[in-house]
Amino acid sequence: MQDNAQYGATDGEDEHGRTVLTGTAADRQARKHLVGRFRDADLEVRIDPVGNIVGRYTPALCDPDAAPVALGSHLDSVPNGGIFDGPLGTYGALEVVRAMQESDVATKLSRPIEVVSFTEEEGSRFGFGTLGSAVATGRIDVSEALSLEDDTGTTLGDALEQIGFRGTAEVAPRTWDSWVELHIEQGTRLTAADAGVGIVDTITGIMNCHVKITGEADHAGSTSMADRSDALVSAAEFILAVEQAPLESGTTSPTAVATAGKVTVEPNVRNIVPGAVRLELDIRDVDRAVMDQILESCRSSLSDLERRCGVGTALRLHRVTEPTQMDDRCLSAADDAVTARGIKSLRLHSAAIHDTANVADVTDTCLLFAPSVDGISHSPREWTEWDDCATATGVLADTVFQLASS
Amino acid sequence: MQDNAQYGATDGEDEHGRTVLTGTAADRQARKHLVGRFRDADLEVRIDPVGNIVGRYTPALCDPDAAPVALGSHLDSVPNGGIFDGPLGTYGALEVVRAMQESDVATKLSRPIEVVSFTEEEGSRFGFGTLGSAVATGRIDVSEALSLEDDTGTTLGDALEQIGFRGTAEVAPRTWDSWVELHIEQGTRLTAADAGVGIVDTITGIMNCHVKITGEADHAGSTSMADRSDALVSAAEFILAVEQAPLESGTTSPTAVATAGKVTVEPNVRNIVPGAVRLELDIRDVDRAVMDQILESCRSSLSDLERRCGVGTALRLHRVTEPTQMDDRCLSAADDAVTARGIKSLRLHSAAIHDTANVADVTDTCLLFAPSVDGISHSPREWTEWDDCATATGVLADTVFQLASS
Repeated sequence: MQDNAQYGATDGEDEHGRTVLTGTAADRQARKHLVGRFRDADLEVRIDPVGNIVGRYTPALCDPDAAPVALGSHLDSVPNGGIFDGPLGTYGALEVVRAMQESDVATKLSRPIEVVSFTEEEGSRFGFGTLGSAVATGRIDVSEALSLEDDTGTTLGDALEQIGFRGTAEVAPRTWDSWVELHIEQGTRLTAADAGVGIVDTITGIMNCHVKITGEADHAGSTSMADRSDALVSAAEFILAVEQAPLESGTTSPTAVATAGKVTVEPNVRNIVPGAVRLELDIRDVDRAVMDQILESCRSSLSDLERRCGVGTALRLHRVTEPTQMDDRCLSAADDAVTARGIKSLRLHSAAIHDTANVADVTDTCLLFAPSVDGISHSPREWTEWDDCATATGVLADTVFQLASS
Repeated sequence: MQDNAQYGATDGEDEHGRTVLTGTAADRQARKHLVGRFRDADLEVRIDPVGNIVGRYTPALCDPDAAPVALGSHLDSVPNGGIFDGPLGTYGALEVVRAMQESDVATKLSRPIEVVSFTEEEGSRFGFGTLGSAVATGRIDVSEALSLEDDTGTTLGDALEQIGFRGTAEVAPRTWDSWVELHIEQGTRLTAADAGVGIVDTITGIMNCHVKITGEADHAGSTSMADRSDALVSAAEFILAVEQAPLESGTTSPTAVATAGKVTVEPNVRNIVPGAVRLELDIRDVDRAVMDQILESCRSSLSDLERRCGVGTALRLHRVTEPTQMDDRCLSAADDAVTARGIKSLRLHSAAIHDTANVADVTDTCLLFAPSVDGISHSPREWTEWDDCATATGVLADTVFQLASS
């Protein structure tokens, strides 16, 4: 995994950043390194049409036709992201298999094991997060995925072709017995609880909305305060309402969050009263009903602005990802692992979407978290202590062993 | 003036837009047309180093060495602006001279008359509004002005050279007896009062500030509402405080306005809590003390946000234009003109800066307004009824006649 950090490296002083966008030279290097390590470990390598990579280990005494247990994560990153988000779960999975190969537990495995690296988890180049697992689980068509374009009009298909990772094999999570992903927490709950590993029981749902508030662009000098229909002033009220929405009585879910992360002002000129403001909202919770409440609260704030301020408003809900429950069978394997190892663990939800949320559509899953220092991720300052990586990888190994030997 | 509307025309249905940026082909056409009309009227044409154009009329019986009375405006526009903002005052001035030439009042003129079109009043290409008059009145150096660059790195000097309007003559407002500018109101006070013309007694002052609010960029999923330092939420509170500042008790100036017109969010990504927000403020009033009060109110709002929300804030006041008083001698000439013509007029302030504000540094000035339909300007929907153009031009004529015959 330390080797992987060199691909797309954007190191600063005391920082370890990387930019690995799908289909770039850095991505090719990272993928070739992984495939090389798979081959070193005698894994059978498959690559599917959207570049998902699998290294399959078939233990000598297992039934080669049994449904495999799969584990892994992704290798792509956000621009100037960190070295743990994705690679920890991918190389952690490889280490699990290598450790099994070298110990006598291998003889007890009744199922093949597949180490997986999914394509474009971050959605940073082609704008569609958890893309590889969405294709593999049938959420979207291969052809639709391959025709997604980056900002310059290059398709995913062409980009994968260019780096030699547009394969023909099948990666089909529906055929897996189960799936376990190890990922960094990207939060501070584990360190706050002094827990060595997190066992995720639910992955948050997400609603994404476009909002537009329309006033009247006017001269910032000759339009009196009373005569204005300033879209930005209304947007400011709305931004405060969005922030309050998860805290409102009736909601009170501690896992609920709502964010106005992207704002575009028109015409965005110092001496013109803003005529229109577009906002992108992100609403998350583990409970769909709470997400609906927050959305309703945002809608009613907009209606109120229309009434009080005379602005026009529109809200379009353009993507809903339902909250996803992990499975008892996998959770109890993880619980047994931390108990056996005497590690303090925490049951928690994942407030970020991971490939596991897609895989959970078609087979049993769980998701393990390693602690993030200061909760920082998507940043060169993202860090997880090496000891914590090792601890979490040990829990991953025991969890997978239990699933693959039963 | 109708002819001038064709240069840089951006007509839509029932709209009359134009884009005339300094030093472009449309600007060359507009300037050549004006010079042609000056020559048709036997005016002596001069062009100075920043492209300010003068057409001088020396009435037969006047003292040719007497300080001239000057009148005019500008021909450049904002992108997709209107056809009246600037050209009304420029071609209105030419019509005044032509009408004098054709009537017997010419014999009563004791001073030459200069019709002026100033360069880059809007600042739309080189980022410096009222540039031509700022150079002519000595507010900034010719060399500094000529080295201003547009977004592509082209200098004003090169752009003027290219269109053949980088002259060598002198245009020196300090040598003028007086200056009168006719412009559209860009507001609704005249139509609200059913007044045919506005006589401006004060031009607003302007303060421009950069503001930066710094929080912490974080994952919009895994950072709980309580753990956030969302720069946009603080910026929203600040935007509302800016809007309230001119209305606060203690201020109460009906002419005071404050606008947050430009906002830049970092990183401006849907699923990242905003880490920083930059805002551009525009604060205006006819009373400098009120402007200072509003600025102080903005500063105290930022201090409050630092205290309550833990964000960092910075405010930099980067440009102050003082309020400018028009002169009694010119104002009373305009008052006499509307009285003689039986036109209902309104004394009012100008909430926009005009070249007159620079010229007022060095000689006596006044500014006349023609009514704007619905107050719209800087838009293809900008309109002033032709009758109102004629009425205001008549008042301009009488005002200039009184100044030039005394």
